[in-house]
Amino acid sequence: MTSENLNRRWLLDSRPPGEPSPKNFRWSEDPVPKPGDGEVLVRTIYLSLDPYMRGRMREARSFTSPVALGDVMTGGAVGVVDASENPDFEVGDIVEGRSGWQDYAVLPADELRRIDPDTAPISTAIGVLGMPGMTAYFGLLEVGKPGPGETVLVSAASGAVGGLVGQIAKINGCRAVGIAGSDAKCGYIVDELGYDAAINRKTENVAAALEKHCPDGIDVYFDNVGGTILDAALVHINMRARIVICGMISEYNLVEPELARRPTRILLTRRARMQGMLVFDYRDRYPEGLRQMARWIDEGRVKYKEDIVDGLENAPSAFIGLLRGENFGKRLIRVSEDPTVT
Amino acid sequence: MTSENLNRRWLLDSRPPGEPSPKNFRWSEDPVPKPGDGEVLVRTIYLSLDPYMRGRMREARSFTSPVALGDVMTGGAVGVVDASENPDFEVGDIVEGRSGWQDYAVLPADELRRIDPDTAPISTAIGVLGMPGMTAYFGLLEVGKPGPGETVLVSAASGAVGGLVGQIAKINGCRAVGIAGSDAKCGYIVDELGYDAAINRKTENVAAALEKHCPDGIDVYFDNVGGTILDAALVHINMRARIVICGMISEYNLVEPELARRPTRILLTRRARMQGMLVFDYRDRYPEGLRQMARWIDEGRVKYKEDIVDGLENAPSAFIGLLRGENFGKRLIRVSEDPTVT
Repeated sequence: MTSENLNRRWLLDSRPPGEPSPKNFRWSEDPVPKPGDGEVLVRTIYLSLDPYMRGRMREARSFTSPVALGDVMTGGAVGVVDASENPDFEVGDIVEGRSGWQDYAVLPADELRRIDPDTAPISTAIGVLGMPGMTAYFGLLEVGKPGPGETVLVSAASGAVGGLVGQIAKINGCRAVGIAGSDAKCGYIVDELGYDAAINRKTENVAAALEKHCPDGIDVYFDNVGGTILDAALVHINMRARIVICGMISEYNLVEPELARRPTRILLTRRARMQGMLVFDYRDRYPEGLRQMARWIDEGRVKYKEDIVDGLENAPSAFIGLLRGENFGKRLIRVSEDPTVT
Repeated sequence: MTSENLNRRWLLDSRPPGEPSPKNFRWSEDPVPKPGDGEVLVRTIYLSLDPYMRGRMREARSFTSPVALGDVMTGGAVGVVDASENPDFEVGDIVEGRSGWQDYAVLPADELRRIDPDTAPISTAIGVLGMPGMTAYFGLLEVGKPGPGETVLVSAASGAVGGLVGQIAKINGCRAVGIAGSDAKCGYIVDELGYDAAINRKTENVAAALEKHCPDGIDVYFDNVGGTILDAALVHINMRARIVICGMISEYNLVEPELARRPTRILLTRRARMQGMLVFDYRDRYPEGLRQMARWIDEGRVKYKEDIVDGLENAPSAFIGLLRGENFGKRLIRVSEDPTVT
């Protein structure tokens, strides 16, 4: 799919005020770059698409600087070393790094993580054994701090992060209730992932369904969506509940922020905590989290689902669809053939 | 001021939709009750007036059950034992307990705290050495967790709680910035209490003043007022900031909750925490907090200001004024003569 001579790239061409459109991205075909001293040239195999990328398209700084207009869209990826000017990496090594939406990236060696293709499919390095997996693991365990018998509510519960949060909650002896956007997703999280109950946010009254499926209230709400679902969840939180603010996909495309009741009265009377979490804050502990997730996968206690779209050319539409909830599982782009699949 | 034969009482007569009016309270003169076995009859000396009482006038349960219509208004008080059917208390003992808005209350002995009139003025048992003091102490230190060099912002900064929070912040090596409702209050918190800066919320643009007085951002916001001041403070919080939700006096009289931007985007990008606190959760640690506060008072490191209104008959108007911010310091009602003052 890649050309030996060209680096196909998606650049940010303009900033969308609301929902991104294909017009906001510009296709570019450039020479393949060469690694400098100590650097590595990586050919992209799988590109990760994640909701946080919408934030990078804004002008405002959020976690980090926005993508500049004319720059390649940012993104994590799994790739193969194509050329190396660093003794630690050899041509053919599988690595994970922040390649962006393009065929080739030159990256400093210390920003690459070596992936062993024998332990798991290499695509998992940007999924369950990568950023989304670590988000679920540290977000739930370190910020949510669920106790046995507690009720954990998860929104976007069939997504890359949410699908894992419910399973980790179950492993920790909790009741897991998920909110998702279709009957198929709801069936999947209950039947395949072991959620105790699922709420279809498109066909059910979420407030009434929360009342029904969280009869003992909510102790931990792992929030990936924000908006009115957060408002509804707040009503049902228990004393000393923990609300993990991990994402707010329902708000990313809003031109103007939505207004809502302040959550403070509920936080006060229930002595509850609402806390933002960013996975990179746990970077030093990734080895621990990755080891644990890999063990759970081996034991069959954690399952994951990938939603693979073929072809870099489809990245903008696949990303726009992700923001609409059209994905089913962790969405990624197969940019070039996976050499480890036989 | 009290009659030997009557128990004058303020009963809740109706629930105010917005700002309470004197009409919501009903004056009643009843026989003085008699203590049963194990109980103590306490004559009220000082009645505490606190913003949380507004919540007890609502129909909805908040921290605890509302005051029922026709029941005496709830409240903490310092009093003197007038009759005792419990061997642990003698007539003349000074005690603190939840007497309510009345001359006399029969209370179970295990709900009374004995006050030593030799250590501090007995009125402090419902102020700096009582509930407001413990709120400031545990709220700041256990929920706010301020570190040296950090900026602590406090609203209602000359009030019963806020006046103490800034001083405890200074003792802990922080920069303390207070928001208050008059130039006199602003002058007081800087000149007397040692705040580094003060913002008059009525005459200054709070957003601009925060920018000026918190040049390094806000690490801890101790929020007593909620509303638009909370919204303004959020804009300036730092990475990993802690927002202590202690009260929301600006919202207590609202008929309909105000709408505002959700705080979640800021909490997420700054990995900040917003947490409700209720002092009673720290009950087991009051001895530690009271010892420390008493030591700081002795050392001259913590000062406090009382705003005493004479006469139980004035309790409703003094309470309505408290909700308007007309008090200057800890507001209390002198219901009967303080026998320890010579």
